[in-house]
Amino acid sequence: MGNGSLQHRRNLALGSGAELFYAMPIEIVRGEGVYLYDSNGRRYVDMYNNVPCVGHANPVVVKAMAEQQATLNVHSRYLHEGIVTFAERLTGLNHDGIESVVFSCSGTEANEVAIQMARIVTGNGGLICTDAAYHGNSELVDSLSYVGLSPSESGDVRSFPFPERYRPLQDGLGDEELCEAYLTRVAMAIESLRAAGTGFAALIVCPIFANEGVPDIPPGFMAKVTDLVHREGGLVIADEVQSGYGRTGRWWGYEFSQFRPDVVVMGKPMGNGLPIGATAAKKEFVDAFRTERDYFNTCASTPLQAAVGMAVLDEIERLDLLRNATEVGARLANELRGRMEKFDAIGDVRGCGLFLSVELIRDGDSKEPDTELTLTLGDRLKERGFLVSYAGKYENVLKIRPPLVFSHANADEFLGAFDECMEELRE
Amino acid sequence: MGNGSLQHRRNLALGSGAELFYAMPIEIVRGEGVYLYDSNGRRYVDMYNNVPCVGHANPVVVKAMAEQQATLNVHSRYLHEGIVTFAERLTGLNHDGIESVVFSCSGTEANEVAIQMARIVTGNGGLICTDAAYHGNSELVDSLSYVGLSPSESGDVRSFPFPERYRPLQDGLGDEELCEAYLTRVAMAIESLRAAGTGFAALIVCPIFANEGVPDIPPGFMAKVTDLVHREGGLVIADEVQSGYGRTGRWWGYEFSQFRPDVVVMGKPMGNGLPIGATAAKKEFVDAFRTERDYFNTCASTPLQAAVGMAVLDEIERLDLLRNATEVGARLANELRGRMEKFDAIGDVRGCGLFLSVELIRDGDSKEPDTELTLTLGDRLKERGFLVSYAGKYENVLKIRPPLVFSHANADEFLGAFDECMEELRE
Repeated sequence: MGNGSLQHRRNLALGSGAELFYAMPIEIVRGEGVYLYDSNGRRYVDMYNNVPCVGHANPVVVKAMAEQQATLNVHSRYLHEGIVTFAERLTGLNHDGIESVVFSCSGTEANEVAIQMARIVTGNGGLICTDAAYHGNSELVDSLSYVGLSPSESGDVRSFPFPERYRPLQDGLGDEELCEAYLTRVAMAIESLRAAGTGFAALIVCPIFANEGVPDIPPGFMAKVTDLVHREGGLVIADEVQSGYGRTGRWWGYEFSQFRPDVVVMGKPMGNGLPIGATAAKKEFVDAFRTERDYFNTCASTPLQAAVGMAVLDEIERLDLLRNATEVGARLANELRGRMEKFDAIGDVRGCGLFLSVELIRDGDSKEPDTELTLTLGDRLKERGFLVSYAGKYENVLKIRPPLVFSHANADEFLGAFDECMEELRE
Repeated sequence: MGNGSLQHRRNLALGSGAELFYAMPIEIVRGEGVYLYDSNGRRYVDMYNNVPCVGHANPVVVKAMAEQQATLNVHSRYLHEGIVTFAERLTGLNHDGIESVVFSCSGTEANEVAIQMARIVTGNGGLICTDAAYHGNSELVDSLSYVGLSPSESGDVRSFPFPERYRPLQDGLGDEELCEAYLTRVAMAIESLRAAGTGFAALIVCPIFANEGVPDIPPGFMAKVTDLVHREGGLVIADEVQSGYGRTGRWWGYEFSQFRPDVVVMGKPMGNGLPIGATAAKKEFVDAFRTERDYFNTCASTPLQAAVGMAVLDEIERLDLLRNATEVGARLANELRGRMEKFDAIGDVRGCGLFLSVELIRDGDSKEPDTELTLTLGDRLKERGFLVSYAGKYENVLKIRPPLVFSHANADEFLGAFDECMEELRE
């Protein structure tokens, strides 16, 4: 095994508390397509990793990476065709209002750029996020992470309860009234920022509220909140780090949730493992940011990011992965939904393409979250060769977010194992 | 040419104000070793880029990158031998007090981690930097960039004048007295943070003060300021993003400047172009940070960062680049120093291995900085096929910081071109 000794070395080399998945962590040594292999040669179906979106060890991406690194990889203060073309492709995939791109090395850095941009454009400091969001780990971006419903009223961050139909803000409301209830909370947050003298710069959300557990959003909410934000002089930042790049069966989560953000933040899947981040907006906003901040990022906007980033886009298109995400995701969601009758612990099944969530509860009436079952189920599925994780405000949502090359056959394998685990755990 | 049209597309795709070098920017399409080639096939000696430290397109690095990406590249919540071994190699290259590593994707992210760590460890918020430093581009780290001598007294940042002998804080002092003069300014900054109620968390500096223009530091200053900081309960953060990885002929700038920092920040050259950042400290500090922040960085701490990072270390060792930096750097600095008599505009020549600076002035008595000459000289050298840039508080310091594979022959070529340009510009 030797995992014990590796874990011991890891505790010193990386410090205790460097996160590991599973009660018994696994040592992964190889990946291919949708599969990961551990140090004993055991195969797992990867149902968690969104970064290797076009498949682990995708050979087209490997080739692009190796060829570019063997040709040129240098910072962006010389002219280079590649990064310009890559930016053009990204803006071309977005709505008309998205014209220019600032590249960086991570989603955190891209969110930093977005927030700094919104503050420069509006001249205000105040930010609004949800009560259970995660947007990254820098000091500024971390101030938006898991803030709950009462971030410090003296700071420049306010939160609102994320929009959902499963545990709605108020019971007994129709969709339209429920929308209004959430909108009122956003309006209150804006008002609070004004009252504190901070002013309102931006609302920042993941278009599918991934960390919140991929809720069913009351229909029309995102378009309505965008209108509200614009009326109040703020910008809407779509953090597409999880929801973008075909995850929902559309290129962008904002297409799935039907609104047009002012700033689009991209990250994780862009490089299939190569660190890339990007912040896109209309040219006027990007120009204002660049003028004010003189932004430069040494290892970003490079020929390597461009070559790898375009190979990933090529593969998404060549392998028709938006359609795959739509079709496999829809069928898997349906199959899981069909199990709600049989397994009382499944409180809800939600899906956006290949981002599915299974809400696990103790009791159908109270909807009391079953965090323990969620963890145990994750461990049991791992023992059966399927890697998932959890999400949500109560950490009771099984998070299914495989590489986009996940197939119908993979879904069938998984459903078999899922049934077995649920049977076991019911006992 | 076609550069005009590429530049036009770039203005839209990346926004106006995305920085470019030189009055007439160049389109670089290929690199090899110490050379870069433009779209017309013209060869340049790269004397600026520290990121490709083991040479542009280094084949050992390319091979390691391609092989690892074709095998496995996944986040760090599974066990993996590579990243543990890489962390062990990095701590092994540092002094005894550096035991554990937090990986990230850029120098900015690594400085974020260092500052957050220092604040957690000390329980205080206040930071001290120099008046002409640059540490990165996030909101927090940007608050330390080029702050001058009077950052807002109400914030949590104070600055002190960077230590130097060329334009000393006070004239007519011996080295020891000059040290004391700078130490007094640091002590005042600490006092000011205390008075504001912020308390003192850390002093953060580049060990060779690269952005400040690589000054001659009064001997003993860094050891003395480290003692002062420790007496006052703060940590010393060495931002080795520019000074580390053999740049000075030692592995770390702090060895060159003779002190032992509490936190070491690494970046740029670590991946020869692959984004990698790292923050290292004693285990106790890293543990405290991980416990408090639950830090996770998706594309960092990966098998790809490990494989590429170790290939870079291997190449530095195999090619004996620390010795090369020492020897070529010393000879080039001497040659340039020998030209001070002939060219009045050269006010000072300073060097730390292969990081050299040539201070350009209008007049030897006033030492008035000649920013214009510095820019023009950079452009003229470019026309002759040598790529340099500038640095320093007054942007009048020619910055020579080539890949570490820069040879004696390259230095000779450069000196010929330098003489010609200086002759031309004297007329």
